[in-house]
Amino acid sequence: MKCVGEASVSERTKGAPQFDAEFRERLRDLLKWRRDVRRFRRDPLHEGTIERLIATACLAPSVGLSEPWRFVIVEDEARRSAIRQCFEDCNRAALDMQSRDRAALYAHLKLAGLDDAPCQLAVFADRATAQGGGLGRLTMPETLDYSVVIAVHTLWLAARAEGLGVGWVSIVDPARIAAILDVPPHWIFIGHLCVGYPAQDDDTPALERQGWEHRHSPSATVLYR
Amino acid sequence: MKCVGEASVSERTKGAPQFDAEFRERLRDLLKWRRDVRRFRRDPLHEGTIERLIATACLAPSVGLSEPWRFVIVEDEARRSAIRQCFEDCNRAALDMQSRDRAALYAHLKLAGLDDAPCQLAVFADRATAQGGGLGRLTMPETLDYSVVIAVHTLWLAARAEGLGVGWVSIVDPARIAAILDVPPHWIFIGHLCVGYPAQDDDTPALERQGWEHRHSPSATVLYR
Repeated sequence: MKCVGEASVSERTKGAPQFDAEFRERLRDLLKWRRDVRRFRRDPLHEGTIERLIATACLAPSVGLSEPWRFVIVEDEARRSAIRQCFEDCNRAALDMQSRDRAALYAHLKLAGLDDAPCQLAVFADRATAQGGGLGRLTMPETLDYSVVIAVHTLWLAARAEGLGVGWVSIVDPARIAAILDVPPHWIFIGHLCVGYPAQDDDTPALERQGWEHRHSPSATVLYR
Repeated sequence: MKCVGEASVSERTKGAPQFDAEFRERLRDLLKWRRDVRRFRRDPLHEGTIERLIATACLAPSVGLSEPWRFVIVEDEARRSAIRQCFEDCNRAALDMQSRDRAALYAHLKLAGLDDAPCQLAVFADRATAQGGGLGRLTMPETLDYSVVIAVHTLWLAARAEGLGVGWVSIVDPARIAAILDVPPHWIFIGHLCVGYPAQDDDTPALERQGWEHRHSPSATVLYR
C-alpha cells in the first residue's frame, strides 16, 4: 500500500541540491571575508542590483512566514543629508560616553560609509503585519524583528558574493530615521545599510585591525547543561 | 613615494577569494532549500559537529565586535523535558488565541522537533558584555541581540550545507527557559534550536505546504524615498 504523503515526500527530496566539501569551503570563505564595510568606492551599482539583492533577502526565514521585512531605498539628497546629520549627532553623544584614550581611537574609526556608498537602504520590521496569523510570536514578538535581521544578513552575504560590500549603521536614533523617511508608524527601524564596492577586501574586522577589540575563542561562549 | 597604508591595503586585498557565478548559484540553492525543519530523523550527530558549527557561527558580524552570543548545548534529560513542557504550555495558550478554523490547522502543524532532534541548542545574548566597549549600541542596544540572531542564521546555513537541518523554536517563555538552563541573569534568551538530519528536503516552507500562509512578492516590500 502506498501512502500519498510518503510519495510526495520522496518527490520533494529528489530534486534537493547536494552541497559538497568545495562549496562548504567557499561558503566559509564568504563568511570569513564578509566584513562590515566602512570605506567604499563611489562607483554606482548596476541598475536593478539592489532590487535583485532584496529579492534574495526575501528567501530568509520569518516567524510564521510573516515576511515582516520592509526596505526603503534612500535616493533623495535631502533625506540622505538628514540621515547623515542624525548619525553625526548620535556619534558625538557616543563619543562623549567613551573614556579619553578610547575616545581618541573612537573618533579615528571611520564609522560610516554614508558619504561614499552609492546605495543607501533603510530596513524596517512591520510590527503590525497580519501575515502569518501571529504564529510563533505570541510569547516573543521580537521574533518579527529577528526575521528582518536575518533578511539583512542574507542580503549582506549575497552582496559579498557579487563583490559588493555592506556597512550597517546603528549609531542613529530609530524614531528620527523613521520620521525622515516618512514610513508607516508601525514600522520599527532595524538598520541603515550602505551598499557599494568596498575600497578593499579583508578577512579581519576593521575594529580588530584598528586595535579597538579582538575576536575571542568560540569555545568560551559555550555551556553544557 | 609609497604610502604604507596603501601598501598594506593591497597586501590584504591580494589574498581575497573571488566568488564566481557557479558559487552564487549554489549559494542561492542553499538559501532556497534552507528550511525551518520540524521533522527530524533520530540519528545522532557525529561527535564535535555542534561545536564546529558554533565556531562557524562565531564568524558572524557583531556590533562593536562585541561577540555577545552564548550557546547552551542542552543534553540533560530533565532540562529537555522541562523545555518541552514550557513549549507545550505556550503552544496551548497560542492555540487558544487563534480562531476556530485556524486553530484546527494550527494544531495540525508539527511545530517542534523537540522530541526527535538529537541536538538541542539554546542561544542567548549577553547584554552585560564589556567586549566592544559599547561601540555602536548606545542608541540601539538591541543590536546586541541582532548580532546573536545573525550568528544563529550563520549556523543554520553552515548546517544546511552539511545536510543538517535546524528548527527554531520560539513558542516558549524566555524567562522560564533561562531558569531551566540556569544561565547568568544578564543573558537574554534569543531562540531554542533543534539540530539534526531532516526527515526530508524541501524548497517550500512547511507553513506554505500546509496552507497556513504563502510568500509574497519581494517588490511589495520596497519603498523609494
